[in-house]
Amino acid sequence: LQLNPGNLVNAPEKHLMVDVQASADHRNIAINRVGIKGLRHPIIFTDGNGPPCHTVATFDMYVGLPAEVKGTHMSRFIEIVERQAGAISVATLPGLFRTMLDRLEANTGHLALRFPFFIEKAAPVSGVRSLMDYEIELVVRSHGQEVLLTLAVKAPVTSLCPCSKAISAYGAHNQRSLITLSVGFDAGSPALGVAELIGIAESEASCEVYGLLKRVDEKHVTERAYDNPKFVEDLVRDIAAKLQGDPRFQSFAVESENFESIHNHSAYAVVEKNR
Amino acid sequence: LQLNPGNLVNAPEKHLMVDVQASADHRNIAINRVGIKGLRHPIIFTDGNGPPCHTVATFDMYVGLPAEVKGTHMSRFIEIVERQAGAISVATLPGLFRTMLDRLEANTGHLALRFPFFIEKAAPVSGVRSLMDYEIELVVRSHGQEVLLTLAVKAPVTSLCPCSKAISAYGAHNQRSLITLSVGFDAGSPALGVAELIGIAESEASCEVYGLLKRVDEKHVTERAYDNPKFVEDLVRDIAAKLQGDPRFQSFAVESENFESIHNHSAYAVVEKNR
Amino acid sequence: LQLNPGNLVNAPEKHLMVDVQASADHRNIAINRVGIKGLRHPIIFTDGNGPPCHTVATFDMYVGLPAEVKGTHMSRFIEIVERQAGAISVATLPGLFRTMLDRLEANTGHLALRFPFFIEKAAPVSGVRSLMDYEIELVVRSHGQEVLLTLAVKAPVTSLCPCSKAISAYGAHNQRSLITLSVGFDAGSPALGVAELIGIAESEASCEVYGLLKRVDEKHVTERAYDNPKFVEDLVRDIAAKLQGDPRFQSFAVESENFESIHNHSAYAVVEKNR
Amino acid sequence: LQLNPGNLVNAPEKHLMVDVQASADHRNIAINRVGIKGLRHPIIFTDGNGPPCHTVATFDMYVGLPAEVKGTHMSRFIEIVERQAGAISVATLPGLFRTMLDRLEANTGHLALRFPFFIEKAAPVSGVRSLMDYEIELVVRSHGQEVLLTLAVKAPVTSLCPCSKAISAYGAHNQRSLITLSVGFDAGSPALGVAELIGIAESEASCEVYGLLKRVDEKHVTERAYDNPKFVEDLVRDIAAKLQGDPRFQSFAVESENFESIHNHSAYAVVEKNR
Repeated sequence: LQLNPGNLVNAPEKHLMVDVQASADHRNIAINRVGIKGLRHPIIFTDGNGPPCHTVATFDMYVGLPAEVKGTHMSRFIEIVERQAGAISVATLPGLFRTMLDRLEANTGHLALRFPFFIEKAAPVSGVRSLMDYEIELVVRSHGQEVLLTLAVKAPVTSLCPCSKAISAYGAHNQRSLITLSVGFDAGSPALGVAELIGIAESEASCEVYGLLKRVDEKHVTERAYDNPKFVEDLVRDIAAKLQGDPRFQSFAVESENFESIHNHSAYAVVEKNR
Repeated sequence: LQLNPGNLVNAPEKHLMVDVQASADHRNIAINRVGIKGLRHPIIFTDGNGPPCHTVATFDMYVGLPAEVKGTHMSRFIEIVERQAGAISVATLPGLFRTMLDRLEANTGHLALRFPFFIEKAAPVSGVRSLMDYEIELVVRSHGQEVLLTLAVKAPVTSLCPCSKAISAYGAHNQRSLITLSVGFDAGSPALGVAELIGIAESEASCEVYGLLKRVDEKHVTERAYDNPKFVEDLVRDIAAKLQGDPRFQSFAVESENFESIHNHSAYAVVEKNR
Repeated sequence: LQLNPGNLVNAPEKHLMVDVQASADHRNIAINRVGIKGLRHPIIFTDGNGPPCHTVATFDMYVGLPAEVKGTHMSRFIEIVERQAGAISVATLPGLFRTMLDRLEANTGHLALRFPFFIEKAAPVSGVRSLMDYEIELVVRSHGQEVLLTLAVKAPVTSLCPCSKAISAYGAHNQRSLITLSVGFDAGSPALGVAELIGIAESEASCEVYGLLKRVDEKHVTERAYDNPKFVEDLVRDIAAKLQGDPRFQSFAVESENFESIHNHSAYAVVEKNR
Repeated sequence: LQLNPGNLVNAPEKHLMVDVQASADHRNIAINRVGIKGLRHPIIFTDGNGPPCHTVATFDMYVGLPAEVKGTHMSRFIEIVERQAGAISVATLPGLFRTMLDRLEANTGHLALRFPFFIEKAAPVSGVRSLMDYEIELVVRSHGQEVLLTLAVKAPVTSLCPCSKAISAYGAHNQRSLITLSVGFDAGSPALGVAELIGIAESEASCEVYGLLKRVDEKHVTERAYDNPKFVEDLVRDIAAKLQGDPRFQSFAVESENFESIHNHSAYAVVEKNR
């Protein structure tokens, strides 16, 4: 495509509405993923039998582009999001992915959504109810001819240091930690619950965290964490132990970042498994 | 200024190097601050008698623009930073500010630098030495005919909850907190130490945090925090109590954000004083 | 309050459920604002007659604490958010603020919400419809005996540089800019539209930005921006010119940050007015 | 390890200085990576024959932990950074990595540094000199028995849309883009220049960006970008074309994120190759 700036001004009718993206490309380089990144859009997410959660998602939508095509059609990605109606779930996302491949005339792709998700929890003693917020990331992508899903949940928890407890006459340093649990599975696998994964992450922490705690609850979570000290290594191992026998997952990764209360850096660990 | 796109192509010599910014403006609206934002540049910062600290600063540089002038000269801000040689300190910054006003032919301005600063600390028992990182913000700005400086330090510390300690049979939730201490003073005031302010913030926390701690140190900081519980309210009050009698400050603000280990939100408090 | 760690273990019944926060404080330092920061919660926001917008807000909730009270009651802030039912609007927010003061037994306070907001826009030529996302911040706060509201909208737009256009034979550098328009008004003022403010910001840019544009639209926005060059100074002045005569606002600030396409830093300007 | 809280208070001498981390673990789960994350430390980075660059790095340092060991020794990671003296370069980093494995008694590891790096550039016409800032990431990690390095540079550039130029009578939308170019190679490969990679990324953009431009330069970069339109696909292909024949790289990835001036989301593309 040769464009002459003079022509652009003097004879605009000649080039108007040229479809530059559809022209041929001669560099012989296929593009692994091309599309739009960071599009925010409101969605309704449904987790299994749970209530629909109105939230705001950030979309990344990419397709593979063959070596001989110059450009993809960026506006079609937006149209797909705009036309998407009804609730999104782990089960419906592969359909949205296939729509993307069809509309973009692509053989491979990568569709990712990130959003905050809310679960109503009861405080451990008083039972007062409040929402907890979690970050969720869902990715559907081509892997050769297969379509793989990855579901990642980020669950904030309390961790209490076993070393600090063991060596100190009283007290023990503790802190907020962020557990990231991601599981990979086939698009055709039995539906998997976001809340279920969050529950696994929370149950293996020194203690869960909550939006709302009354004094009786604060006593409980303080003592519970002290009774249940865990290193960052323990957190990821104890969660991995729960996941490793589960036949639904082709792969998983368990990360924990502990925002150490005695340092200005984090402790971090990850266990990864591929079957 | 009327520009004809045809002319741009056909007679470029007519308008080349027009100084659009210097033309007159008829909207009769003065601009409070205009300039560049988010420029990164390496600097050497010297704090009183301390060793020079090589670091990377982010500069915001603005001047007031009279109602009758169309635009400022953005490239001059960059030139000032490029020509700046030698170490920057609280004492030298007003000079850089005056250079900015002169070069931009401005009566008022606002010059802000943010950078990480490092102090070597000794662990409390073992004495092992390591660097701690702190965020610093320095602002010089016009306030009427005066030139005011604001120095803000962000010091991470440990806070331990007095309520959790009092109501629990053992343990107490604790977490990393970020104390922001900012003081305002006249450009002509006696030089003020960044390390001095950081020291005030750290001394009033449940415990300081460190880069490197051996086991004997970890025992010490755990017990120290347990012996010294503080609410977010206590942190800001105890620091304010130290600052309020100091004649060097025209104003101060003491903030603390506690990244609660039992919640996914923060506790926050601020005490502000103006003389 | 003196706590003996030995007692904590040996005689827990003595101190259980002590209300440490309610005890007296003798430092004689009032706290300007204390409370919770960074709480995420789903909300429904209604803008005037527009459709309800399901979104996710981040809440900061603070009250003033008298010198003689040791601590505030953090859990009550969460209860207020949990109990809040129905849509939030600029008109209903002062009610939520008064609820906060009542529940916390406070005379002064500061309640802030930040959330993404979505408006369906039609592309300028094709008319295809898509959502645009905007960041909104609403603050209700005490100012002496008064209750003031501040509404800030962040509108991304296109800016095209008049200097670049004037001195170049063809083309002109342009970029995304973020306009932040905030207006202050009394709680009792006539309801003010978020969409109205966004419209003011967008109408004075070189061009609006859109979620979805077809080729005929892309031609339009390209030429529109080239026909309508604006410095960062022009953006804030042209918006300020529209706001300065509006009797509904006690104060306003118009900021623009231009993410320069020819630099790795931003150009920035702000016009502030207080009546 | 069973800890009795009563003992902790009543008989501290029994458990003091227990090395909890060194005890045995019976869960039979190896940890892929464990260590510290987000440690900030000043460094001097030398790029080939270039001048030493004082900057501030963020370190992530992890080792593999065998199934039978309970915990790693977090303080040793910090000691390694503290003891590191002299300039760091691509050539010296494998030595630091081996020190880490030795000190942590580990067979595998992952050491990552991220830091801003500065290069003095001359403006294209006036020749005025100023610094440009780039983000660099260096990773050394085990891959089976091998040690692999990855060097990633992030270079901001200008991109100008060919479609917008082709269909519009005048003008063309353009914006800042961020090109991320990462290359993987063996620890024993010939030293590779950060500046060289940045140069490759910049040379294939519609135009380079600069810290400081005079009016003659602004005319040049405006016209240069207009003469050299590139889609996000073109950017990554043209850089990939330069890298694919280079025998020094085992793998590379070329990403570009274009912060579209006509949208509030980005266009994105990536080409990845493994030999």
